[in-house]
Amino acid sequence: MKKFLFPALFLVSGAPALADEGQWQPYQLPQLKAELKKVGITIPAEKLADLSKHPMSAIVSTGGCSASFVSPDGLIVTNHHCAYDAIQRNSSAKKNYIVDGFLAKTRDQELPAGASARVYITDKVDNVSKEVGEGVTATMSGRERRERIQSNIKKIIADCEQDKAYRCSVPSFHRGLEYYRIRQMMIRDVRLVYAPADMIGNYGGDIDNFEWPRHTGDFSFIRAYVGKDGRPADPSPDNVPYRSKDFLVVSAEGLKNGDPILLAGYPGRTSRYKLPAEIRFARDTDYPIRAAEMLADIATIEAAAKGNPDDEVRYASVVKGINNRLKKTQGLIAGFARKDIAAIKDQQDAQFRLWLSGKDAKQAQTLLSQLDAVIAQDMALSQEEFAYSVATNSDLFSSARTLYRLALEKEKPNAQREGGYQERDLAFIKGRLTRLEQSFVSKVDQARLTEGLARYAKLPAHPAGLDALLPTADAIAAMFSKTQLHNTAQRLAWMEKDRAAFAQSDDAFIRWAVQLHDVGMSLENRRKEIDGNLDFIIPQYMQAVIDWKKSQGKPVYPDANSTLRVTFGNVGAYSPRNGVTKGPFTTVEGIVEKHTGLDPFIAPAPLLQAIKEQRFGVFKDPILGTVPVDFLSSADTTGGNSGSAVMNKRGELIGLNFDSTYESITNDWYFDTAITRAIHVDIRYMLWVMKEVDHADNVLKEMTIKYPR
Amino acid sequence: MKKFLFPALFLVSGAPALADEGQWQPYQLPQLKAELKKVGITIPAEKLADLSKHPMSAIVSTGGCSASFVSPDGLIVTNHHCAYDAIQRNSSAKKNYIVDGFLAKTRDQELPAGASARVYITDKVDNVSKEVGEGVTATMSGRERRERIQSNIKKIIADCEQDKAYRCSVPSFHRGLEYYRIRQMMIRDVRLVYAPADMIGNYGGDIDNFEWPRHTGDFSFIRAYVGKDGRPADPSPDNVPYRSKDFLVVSAEGLKNGDPILLAGYPGRTSRYKLPAEIRFARDTDYPIRAAEMLADIATIEAAAKGNPDDEVRYASVVKGINNRLKKTQGLIAGFARKDIAAIKDQQDAQFRLWLSGKDAKQAQTLLSQLDAVIAQDMALSQEEFAYSVATNSDLFSSARTLYRLALEKEKPNAQREGGYQERDLAFIKGRLTRLEQSFVSKVDQARLTEGLARYAKLPAHPAGLDALLPTADAIAAMFSKTQLHNTAQRLAWMEKDRAAFAQSDDAFIRWAVQLHDVGMSLENRRKEIDGNLDFIIPQYMQAVIDWKKSQGKPVYPDANSTLRVTFGNVGAYSPRNGVTKGPFTTVEGIVEKHTGLDPFIAPAPLLQAIKEQRFGVFKDPILGTVPVDFLSSADTTGGNSGSAVMNKRGELIGLNFDSTYESITNDWYFDTAITRAIHVDIRYMLWVMKEVDHADNVLKEMTIKYPR
Repeated sequence: MKKFLFPALFLVSGAPALADEGQWQPYQLPQLKAELKKVGITIPAEKLADLSKHPMSAIVSTGGCSASFVSPDGLIVTNHHCAYDAIQRNSSAKKNYIVDGFLAKTRDQELPAGASARVYITDKVDNVSKEVGEGVTATMSGRERRERIQSNIKKIIADCEQDKAYRCSVPSFHRGLEYYRIRQMMIRDVRLVYAPADMIGNYGGDIDNFEWPRHTGDFSFIRAYVGKDGRPADPSPDNVPYRSKDFLVVSAEGLKNGDPILLAGYPGRTSRYKLPAEIRFARDTDYPIRAAEMLADIATIEAAAKGNPDDEVRYASVVKGINNRLKKTQGLIAGFARKDIAAIKDQQDAQFRLWLSGKDAKQAQTLLSQLDAVIAQDMALSQEEFAYSVATNSDLFSSARTLYRLALEKEKPNAQREGGYQERDLAFIKGRLTRLEQSFVSKVDQARLTEGLARYAKLPAHPAGLDALLPTADAIAAMFSKTQLHNTAQRLAWMEKDRAAFAQSDDAFIRWAVQLHDVGMSLENRRKEIDGNLDFIIPQYMQAVIDWKKSQGKPVYPDANSTLRVTFGNVGAYSPRNGVTKGPFTTVEGIVEKHTGLDPFIAPAPLLQAIKEQRFGVFKDPILGTVPVDFLSSADTTGGNSGSAVMNKRGELIGLNFDSTYESITNDWYFDTAITRAIHVDIRYMLWVMKEVDHADNVLKEMTIKYPR
Repeated sequence: MKKFLFPALFLVSGAPALADEGQWQPYQLPQLKAELKKVGITIPAEKLADLSKHPMSAIVSTGGCSASFVSPDGLIVTNHHCAYDAIQRNSSAKKNYIVDGFLAKTRDQELPAGASARVYITDKVDNVSKEVGEGVTATMSGRERRERIQSNIKKIIADCEQDKAYRCSVPSFHRGLEYYRIRQMMIRDVRLVYAPADMIGNYGGDIDNFEWPRHTGDFSFIRAYVGKDGRPADPSPDNVPYRSKDFLVVSAEGLKNGDPILLAGYPGRTSRYKLPAEIRFARDTDYPIRAAEMLADIATIEAAAKGNPDDEVRYASVVKGINNRLKKTQGLIAGFARKDIAAIKDQQDAQFRLWLSGKDAKQAQTLLSQLDAVIAQDMALSQEEFAYSVATNSDLFSSARTLYRLALEKEKPNAQREGGYQERDLAFIKGRLTRLEQSFVSKVDQARLTEGLARYAKLPAHPAGLDALLPTADAIAAMFSKTQLHNTAQRLAWMEKDRAAFAQSDDAFIRWAVQLHDVGMSLENRRKEIDGNLDFIIPQYMQAVIDWKKSQGKPVYPDANSTLRVTFGNVGAYSPRNGVTKGPFTTVEGIVEKHTGLDPFIAPAPLLQAIKEQRFGVFKDPILGTVPVDFLSSADTTGGNSGSAVMNKRGELIGLNFDSTYESITNDWYFDTAITRAIHVDIRYMLWVMKEVDHADNVLKEMTIKYPR
């Protein structure tokens, strides 16, 4: 563990042991008793490991974000940006809840969060590695192995989802070494309870995104509703609040530099066990090429939509989404430039290979050479797949492709269909095809396709047979005039049609999707072959890595895969540069400091007034002398951890995770303890805003809050 | 006193009392015993007040910088940038001491620092307010008063300088309330002993100027030489090292966050007692107009010199000088924009006026209305003076003007001549007229005059009579062809000529200087009238301010005026923004972090090697775990404090002052305790570089160094 250079941090916090990296599966925590103790967590590891017990049974997912119950009546707290869609869909020019915030004073004022809003409560996690591996042999082709594994998984899921109240999944852990069946109760009536104004919940906007110092009150409250029988139900006025069997107690007692924290949520994806070659590929080839593509695509969209405010609005969220991925990709490129992570991994990899060879030189050589070969194939294929996506950069094509594939898959029995095209997936497909109308303009899609094809021509790796099937630039306009897919009803109608209808269609995009089918399937089958080989090699490799770490007395956590994880660490600052310390706290005075009156720094007048009058009450930190806003900790987080409960050593809610610092961005690849910091909103700021600014007394009253003595 | 928001600082340092502002005259220190004690200084105030006693008798000036003796043989330590001229003048393409650094291994290898290099040792400071005020009455005109004061001062200086070993001055304190006669031994044989490489002494260059984090080893050693009789003498090989009666002991024992520090040196100029109207004038009118002028002048010079490397070199230091003033002016403009200092002063001023009116309403009204009126005249005249300087933006004109004035002044007895034109000043004038050849190109000077005249035309306040005497743009080329002043010998020859020779000359610039004389004198006389009125009003005002502060139990320090001052404070970080802490230390690892291999971040290879090998020895800080480079303190400094000794509580040398942070730039106008920080180089870095990088063992041996036990 690298140490801080600055004495202040040591002395103040009593030289806290910053936690090493780790997004732990809850069941692993009893192996980490010593680390939990060192950090200062007093809640027993066995209790934390039990998903049916407090506090883990209070932790939920909203599908892309993490959240937690904070009352026995299904009240859930998560990030403002996680509830943004719910706030936006209820807003209009007249009642702009984004700008003004929203507060339901009574339950009947709570607003529907939308048809696709969900709350997932993980209730069972079982190791099904054996079932997933059933019938899988070493001599199978990669594709056979892949299809067998997928078929086994589909069966496990189908069995699990017999009870319609549940959604099941079988994600792989340790890159295929283990598989767990995750059963989650899926609540589908979700309502908006309270959200502060955007200029509290998103103060600093895109400018402050990924940055510290931060002054964002990124929190909102939603509520889970179920049928009168207590089981998940479609949205209905007859539904009642879900009686959550567990919820987090809120502690307004505060925390200080060095204090231990626990964080539970659903981190999305990390790549901590990639090989040095994979890091170099990402750094030197994949990320730069993808960043260039995103930049070009944004430029195309903006040029095509320019001058038409309606078109601009339609693509605003598309551009925002690409921009967000772009900023992350650019941050990763910059992060790789700052720190030679590949070199660090080289060293670790060399040590590992040495250790493995020491055990059985011949076996090691076989494994490692197979591994390197498949990884090389994987990287090469990914460039062809990327080129295919650039050549077909059109929402109409994507829709047509999905629809044609659906028609073909529907010819098979449900259980044998490709994942994503089974009966359980139809509602998702329909939703996606329907929502397209909100973010589609023919002219813009035409520009994206035209420009994408031009860029594709310059890419090095073209999939075999694709070039001959691509339209010339001057043929594209005609394609857009010979399609009905831009019409939502027509688009949806194709969900019911069969292979013959597609073959006979003269819709230009349907025809193109049919023509490109074989090329697409060829890529998909090569992908299965490679993935199937990876499924064979990588688990052996990961098992060896785990054995190696075990020989050093270190447990190994699997890469994040959107499943429930626990991480722990300490409140702490960091040094982005020699001579500069950032964090660990910001305070309400910093809101005033940033307030320029220009978006995104327009603090609401009542907030500024409350700060000016120092109406801090019990939320005033005794050391800071004011109300803290955000703070940093050394917890190990990534995308998907948004909204995660940040708890004190006793498991009481003290904040919400919502971001990481810019310097943490390469943390998906390599966790650098010295500079990686997660950004949390302090519960005291949340409670203070609720009390002094938004007067959300009913919400405050519903929670169980421990105030400082 | 505002407090830091960050708990770390309090707890670590045992909640140090950061010193309030104050550049104290040494005699004032016994009034500040409580403050010295609070900060932690153990050296008795009475001892610090006595310039003939240690440590103050070890503190010297080099004319623009501060310095101190560090051995009994006249060895002096100051900043690298203060010795830069000496390093440069001894450098050539073959022996580039700027790039490589310089070390005299023996005394006979020490190099002459240049004919104008000086060391001033303050030995007597006497209050001569009474003598300066002799014959001054309330009924005199301003000009009469000004001339009487100046005449009295000239007499005091002449008496004082009977002994040619001394240079005397009679600066005003508290804007004319008091005058002190400062007698300084002036040593004029100064030699370069040791300077590290520029990429240590000026690491970070202009990019890091005014900035933190800083990693500059801004130190060098020079030596004072005197005649064999121990008295100052012209440079000669026969001279011997000056036997300094006092010197500072060097402490390598280190210091830490919160530790007390003492700083002694010669701060140049501050404006802490200006009225709100003066601040607004500087902020809204004077600084913006001067910044625009400097920017334009730099552009003119660069355009005119472009393409001719020789011309560029000649103007490099001129441009650097303007740039430095420009950066400071821009920093002040930005600082005023960040913090409404005028509003703070308004409040203080209102309190003061209330207090004063409470004592004697009528008298207060008279004083304050007179004050406001004269200040208004002062500001208005300064704009005409500025316009005059823009209209005559030519080195040839400045030379001609000086020469003509000299001829006129020489008609008077020495004692009655205008200050700056007395016998004692002739060597300075000659030096300036001679040095011009190093930084003059006719073509560039012509461009500056031409463009200056064009800019002058657009300024609002034109001095009466000036416009008619200015050349038209197309007449300027002819002026430059009809002058010999660009020839140094010719220029110097004019020092001997009389009024008649000037009147008869057909040299274009001599003629122009003669023509403009009356306009210039008119400005000068109006200046004297206003200054003489200020000399009458301001002391009354300052006396009232002092009484007001006294009524609150606060002593008052005078604005800086290049005289010896003491300031004290604590090692400490600061918060430039909510959630960010800067300092208090940087370390050698930061040098590596900044090293890009591109100027100004090219750390010398031996330095990088020593860091890599962690050859830190006794210079390793026990808390930081490495060698500190620079550190911050709350001491009150300004330009002129460069090279000032930074001492620990016992008066031992622990560092050198060399800069302030960017946030401190408005500190010349208003000292903001929360964010003002001076930047010092840590003695441990200096000693470590001398030992491990430059092997300056002889210099180390000559000093008395206390190493950590």
